[in-house]
Amino acid sequence: MLVPEGFLFSAVEAGIKYQGRPDLGLIISEVPAAWAGVFTRNDFKAAPVLLALERLKNRETARAVLVNSGCANACTGPEGLSDAREILATLAQSLGVLPEEILPASTGVIGTRLPVPRIKDRLPELVSGLSRDKAALVARAMMTTDTFPKVVSRKIPGTGAVILGLAKGAGMIAPNMATMLAFLLTDAGVPAETLRRLLSEAVNQSFNRITVDGDTSTNDTVYLLANGRAGVLPREAEETFRKTLFEVCRELSYLMVKDGEGATKVVRIRVEGARDATEAERLARAVADSPLVKTAFFGEDPNWGRILVALGKLGLGLDPRGVEILVNEVPLVREGRGLSEEEARREMGRPEFTFRIRLSRGSASVEILTCDLSYEYIKINAEYRT
Amino acid sequence: MLVPEGFLFSAVEAGIKYQGRPDLGLIISEVPAAWAGVFTRNDFKAAPVLLALERLKNRETARAVLVNSGCANACTGPEGLSDAREILATLAQSLGVLPEEILPASTGVIGTRLPVPRIKDRLPELVSGLSRDKAALVARAMMTTDTFPKVVSRKIPGTGAVILGLAKGAGMIAPNMATMLAFLLTDAGVPAETLRRLLSEAVNQSFNRITVDGDTSTNDTVYLLANGRAGVLPREAEETFRKTLFEVCRELSYLMVKDGEGATKVVRIRVEGARDATEAERLARAVADSPLVKTAFFGEDPNWGRILVALGKLGLGLDPRGVEILVNEVPLVREGRGLSEEEARREMGRPEFTFRIRLSRGSASVEILTCDLSYEYIKINAEYRT
Repeated sequence: MLVPEGFLFSAVEAGIKYQGRPDLGLIISEVPAAWAGVFTRNDFKAAPVLLALERLKNRETARAVLVNSGCANACTGPEGLSDAREILATLAQSLGVLPEEILPASTGVIGTRLPVPRIKDRLPELVSGLSRDKAALVARAMMTTDTFPKVVSRKIPGTGAVILGLAKGAGMIAPNMATMLAFLLTDAGVPAETLRRLLSEAVNQSFNRITVDGDTSTNDTVYLLANGRAGVLPREAEETFRKTLFEVCRELSYLMVKDGEGATKVVRIRVEGARDATEAERLARAVADSPLVKTAFFGEDPNWGRILVALGKLGLGLDPRGVEILVNEVPLVREGRGLSEEEARREMGRPEFTFRIRLSRGSASVEILTCDLSYEYIKINAEYRT
Repeated sequence: MLVPEGFLFSAVEAGIKYQGRPDLGLIISEVPAAWAGVFTRNDFKAAPVLLALERLKNRETARAVLVNSGCANACTGPEGLSDAREILATLAQSLGVLPEEILPASTGVIGTRLPVPRIKDRLPELVSGLSRDKAALVARAMMTTDTFPKVVSRKIPGTGAVILGLAKGAGMIAPNMATMLAFLLTDAGVPAETLRRLLSEAVNQSFNRITVDGDTSTNDTVYLLANGRAGVLPREAEETFRKTLFEVCRELSYLMVKDGEGATKVVRIRVEGARDATEAERLARAVADSPLVKTAFFGEDPNWGRILVALGKLGLGLDPRGVEILVNEVPLVREGRGLSEEEARREMGRPEFTFRIRLSRGSASVEILTCDLSYEYIKINAEYRT
């Protein structure tokens, strides 16, 4: 794993909810880092999100990210806010930074308070354990129903700098980035203003283009920190930086869908030939979020009727004769009518495939990543308390 | 069962898809009946819906309803239309009516053609079997994944007339009346214009207020036929007729949710204190359609966090402190914060319960009927070809 210069990592077991695994993680930058953040648009924002929004308004630099799993610290009222502030103040003192320089993130059960004394007890060990080689451990500490930690790193070509991404997310993943956390760290030197513009674009092209169950959480957070330890990014390398950032975000998004609760298939829903980007996205989401379509994916059933139903329900005035559907390269529907399904069924036997929906209304296209809906999703969500 | 005067029923096994059960049903009115129809808004309307829309434009009276299960005759192009026309022409001749006086309805698999010769072969038996006492058999012939036929009848108080309703629908039930058929028959004498106004209202208050999986089919159809055999409805009885019609529609809607694919619970989502009716409905649907909420219902888990997440994801600017949630009469959330869950969990152990979500934004309220999301839903839909 490539790790950007000047970042240190640590994780400990604080027993917030899980036993026998880390659930409290810390990332620090040895020098102040410019930062950007994108957050959930849910009305019920968790305490760490509210604190992060304060920081976003007031500060362009940050020194650390503190993350916990097992408790979302959401819907906990003013007490939840002061719990978070108390923990951050203690950690700040121990790190010798300001509390406002620490970016918080939580994920887990909604409506329960953080066990503040237990967390504060573990902070000294968390700080003393900081090292360059524990990024994967922080990714583990972020997990809830995730079955594997999500870590991606890339060199920024033509520079000595690196982008490292850590993420979690397996359910409640939808439109505006639901129950997902992602931390992007780079040693490139990029001003906060540029970071904020690029991060917002990158999130739209990646984390906002995946869906597991159409729900959006109280805690979604993406942080991007750039500490400049590999030098200032030359203006001519900005496009390369942008591309690498997008790649890292898209790869993390892919890993989240792959780890979608109970998912056995990753499916790309590609809509082409829509009137405009909004229409393309609405159509792709209607298909990607339909439980009937998603159960058909699970059953490896090329049930194009359900795809048409999902497309048609928006009432956009689609003409059946103008609809073509392909599974990977195999035609399944032409002029709104079904073709032989045998080959399409074979394609759906693979762990990943693409449904291409071609309209003849315009030239806009979009791709949304989704997964199938399986027995396991029900099991996880009927038994797990999010 | 109360059966309105002047209607006869018949059903036969045509082997369209199912074996050992009727799948072709016929209802006739001995005299011309005024009629109204409400249909799917899906862009991909099935052939019978397209034919019915023609009839709705051109005729105020009808003589018969022909229904089949096993094949939706949807996405079958011009051939599907001429299949339906051919069957209706043959039946019309046998009944001595015009083809335009027969209202068609189909439900079942999308994208396959009707077995026209086989159906035409069974028409003589279908016609010769007509009798007053086979309404329940027609309800059976309409079933697809339904586990029981849906029949409701009510006297119209203060008149000698009756309303009988037959319906089918178990999945793909959502916003604009998905994969559902309902036929409402009355011997009251009501002009077509009045029927059409009242039916549209009744559908909005009943079939459009239920959801199983958020999908909307190509074939949804509600017919209302009034043949006047019990005399002309006096103007002063119109309100009573309206109420009885609404009751029958609501009762049929309830039966559909109760029979929702894999459903083990019927849940009423009641939103009160919203700004306006649109806001109330959007919020109630966000909750009623959320797979995370629906799996929590299945798990009998009073997971109010998921309810808040669903409410908040619309980004309407809800204030957490203004949210109160009750399960039946048991308070679960007050000022956006969770209370003891023990009693709420007990309420959720019942086969039916109500989630009341009280906001303090205005005075609009709405109630949506939904069901839980269970293993059985996945099983039915991964294996059944809709």
